[in-house]
Amino acid sequence: MAKEITKREDNYSQWYTDIVKKAALADHSAVRGCMVIKPTGFAIWEKMKDQLDKMFKDTGHVNAYFPLFIPKSFLSKEAEHVEGFAKECAVVTHHRLMNNPDGPGVVVDPSAKLEEELIVRPTSETIIWNTYRDWIKSYRDLPLLINQWANVVRWEMRTRPFLRTAEFLWQEGHTAHATEQEAIEESRMIHDLYAQFAEEYMAMPVIKGAKTANERFAGAVETFTIEAMMQDKKALQAGTSHFLGQNFAKAFEVKYLNSENKEEYVWATSWGVSTRLVGGLVMTHSDDEGLVLPPKLAPIQVVIVPIPKPLPELLEKGAQIAKLLRDKGISVKIDQDPTKRPGFKFAEYEMKGIPVRIGIGPRDLEKNQVEVARRDTKTKEGVSIDGIVDHVSKLLVDIQENLLVKAKAFRAENTHTADTYDDFKSLLDEKGGFIEAHWDGTTETELKVKGDTGATIRCIPIEGDKAPGKCMVTGKDSTQKVIFAKAY
Amino acid sequence: MAKEITKREDNYSQWYTDIVKKAALADHSAVRGCMVIKPTGFAIWEKMKDQLDKMFKDTGHVNAYFPLFIPKSFLSKEAEHVEGFAKECAVVTHHRLMNNPDGPGVVVDPSAKLEEELIVRPTSETIIWNTYRDWIKSYRDLPLLINQWANVVRWEMRTRPFLRTAEFLWQEGHTAHATEQEAIEESRMIHDLYAQFAEEYMAMPVIKGAKTANERFAGAVETFTIEAMMQDKKALQAGTSHFLGQNFAKAFEVKYLNSENKEEYVWATSWGVSTRLVGGLVMTHSDDEGLVLPPKLAPIQVVIVPIPKPLPELLEKGAQIAKLLRDKGISVKIDQDPTKRPGFKFAEYEMKGIPVRIGIGPRDLEKNQVEVARRDTKTKEGVSIDGIVDHVSKLLVDIQENLLVKAKAFRAENTHTADTYDDFKSLLDEKGGFIEAHWDGTTETELKVKGDTGATIRCIPIEGDKAPGKCMVTGKDSTQKVIFAKAY
Repeated sequence: MAKEITKREDNYSQWYTDIVKKAALADHSAVRGCMVIKPTGFAIWEKMKDQLDKMFKDTGHVNAYFPLFIPKSFLSKEAEHVEGFAKECAVVTHHRLMNNPDGPGVVVDPSAKLEEELIVRPTSETIIWNTYRDWIKSYRDLPLLINQWANVVRWEMRTRPFLRTAEFLWQEGHTAHATEQEAIEESRMIHDLYAQFAEEYMAMPVIKGAKTANERFAGAVETFTIEAMMQDKKALQAGTSHFLGQNFAKAFEVKYLNSENKEEYVWATSWGVSTRLVGGLVMTHSDDEGLVLPPKLAPIQVVIVPIPKPLPELLEKGAQIAKLLRDKGISVKIDQDPTKRPGFKFAEYEMKGIPVRIGIGPRDLEKNQVEVARRDTKTKEGVSIDGIVDHVSKLLVDIQENLLVKAKAFRAENTHTADTYDDFKSLLDEKGGFIEAHWDGTTETELKVKGDTGATIRCIPIEGDKAPGKCMVTGKDSTQKVIFAKAY
Repeated sequence: MAKEITKREDNYSQWYTDIVKKAALADHSAVRGCMVIKPTGFAIWEKMKDQLDKMFKDTGHVNAYFPLFIPKSFLSKEAEHVEGFAKECAVVTHHRLMNNPDGPGVVVDPSAKLEEELIVRPTSETIIWNTYRDWIKSYRDLPLLINQWANVVRWEMRTRPFLRTAEFLWQEGHTAHATEQEAIEESRMIHDLYAQFAEEYMAMPVIKGAKTANERFAGAVETFTIEAMMQDKKALQAGTSHFLGQNFAKAFEVKYLNSENKEEYVWATSWGVSTRLVGGLVMTHSDDEGLVLPPKLAPIQVVIVPIPKPLPELLEKGAQIAKLLRDKGISVKIDQDPTKRPGFKFAEYEMKGIPVRIGIGPRDLEKNQVEVARRDTKTKEGVSIDGIVDHVSKLLVDIQENLLVKAKAFRAENTHTADTYDDFKSLLDEKGGFIEAHWDGTTETELKVKGDTGATIRCIPIEGDKAPGKCMVTGKDSTQKVIFAKAY
């Protein structure tokens, strides 16, 4: 089974496609650019969703649900939003089918044309701020801290499972505040929350930074981003948090009476992460044998395999161990398939990324031990059954930590500094990865670099080296180094 | 606040609208027929969803996600499905907007017309069975027990929040089986699961039965339903489970190799409940003072109100009590608003349906007690602080049970038997409710009754009186009484 996976060094893109298919994460669908998220892929997304939802609620947010459709005219209300946002979206023009009068099947009923076309939401700022106008009257109604879990559609031309699909699942937070300061703090708090989630749960290190004006969300005053490095050294934008100023409040006339009874426009943020994170997770940790999952997001953390086959006494011992592990909150599968051989099963569970495998054989049992294999390092060892729960609990923590350490080391190895534009170009050509370099702050220079090399400014980092310098391209003043990379 | 609610006896429909609005469950939106589910309404749906999801998983189901869009041609593949299913649906014809060349705003780009129109899913049998064709090859791939939480769209002409909206949220289970028997058992097991959920969690008694041929889901061999009685005595179809035979397998050519290596068509079920349940919950228990929620589905189960206002010593005691309750898994809110008076707050929390209210005042504290009020009966009593956790835990159980008992009694009072068609018509006119009567099993008679009276056959009950008789309309043989009612 494992041999059907393309090696990363041979063809990284094909390797990713193979993993998604062989680990049964997603499937293509009959609709262009839309994927089917298969049960294993969806279970990973559910683990992410549950944890993020808890973190949002712990920070005072509540969930709500707004319509799938947005009246076309709404998109034109915030000038930058319509200008900057992709116009590739699904447009609903009719509301009825009818039996085909000229043959079999159904056709669109021409008499059921909508007066105003509806857009399948590509993001929900416009419909939400149109609603907030009715909900916000006074400072007592603020802050409004709402999140929505939803599907959105952007008619992308080139799609890849999880990383870029026409329809995707995400959460979008939309908050309203009385003051500029409070809205900025909210957008930064969520930015930190996303980074914490990426590192603590996904074991995916990220660089926190601000987007350049050119890369900002359409309608935002400031866009904060978390940027991760994939194993092909390309960057993945993994989540964004926007400070929207009063732009949407002005476009939709959302005002409140402050405590001095004066009318003011409301301040806003919006922020989101999507099923793209599943793609990022796969690309950060997996190897040529298949998926590697951090234990905190693995739907099954431990698989117990009776060797050579599911004999009653092995299954019985397996069930005992499973119960002890489950009592500690560890999710366990017991393999009861009598038709396949251990070697085949081991390869299959490696493919599926189950963090820990416990093999139980008659000879091990005589010694009151089992064989414990970890997916990340592919090492195995005999472990006494008496200490199995502590051992596995600790091992899951170790694996989680090891994956983060490994990913951080990979990123450090592949992050370089360029002082001149020539250095930059050869580094990008020969080594790739993240390149820290000085930039003069203009869109002109940013676009020149992109045109010349294909690299974009991923972010202006918030932490790290803040020393000023001279732009590698123009020699003009630069306030700090920024991160360049080729990106998904 | 409460006085702004219309009384049920004055105008039941307006009462419902008032509750939805005043308890902040949902709001209208800018899109015809689509509602905004507000945080309180969504929190109730989340409680339902979490419990149902657990019940589905406990019975071996897994979640997945299929595309929002269905190619138009798919709808024509299963003949009865396209014939019987409402053709009122949202049709996507274009995939791009462009700046209006003749003025401000955006228009649909005429060059971005789709080759084949896409339908926003009204239900997903067609796209899912088209996918199952690739997933099912052998009996080893069966059963396939998949559920999806999703939004669907049906372009309804007359809508009401939760009960009937153009877009709604639901779960749809789609299972595939090797044998007819196994598929029938699955559809019945889910039918039972829905009934159990309705009674144990929603405290909403339901009648389990089969739909008549005329009321069956388009493409189903058998549709099982749970039918509840609302306080205006009308029936609400609260959930359905369909045995689909091999209809979709044949339409989409889904075959498997059985253990004798012979090709056979796969057997199917599908089943769903939706945000309509929130409407059913409201209509089953609420009263003229506002929402009444069963404790198991109440987002906040207990509110603690310091009287007359949030003085430090009252808040301190409230926090102690809240901690004890939360440690028992009870959700608690402490009211800290210094600006409103207790009477106003009490009315507000009654409106919002919080099951238990604890009032803490200085004089109570001197006696080491608090005042505990229950929402369902509106009674209150002094309770010693020492026993408060046990008291509240037991009270929540009592309220849950009481609501079910009360709803069952209401249904019993409003269920009648008619032996003749004249009796039937006067009962329906004068008393309404559920009417048990004999029916000859024909669609003709069923439609005559509907045409004459507006009542439909809600179901052929599975439990209860199974005695044969003569049809009240035609005098022909009837195998058992069925339930007639006017319905939502």
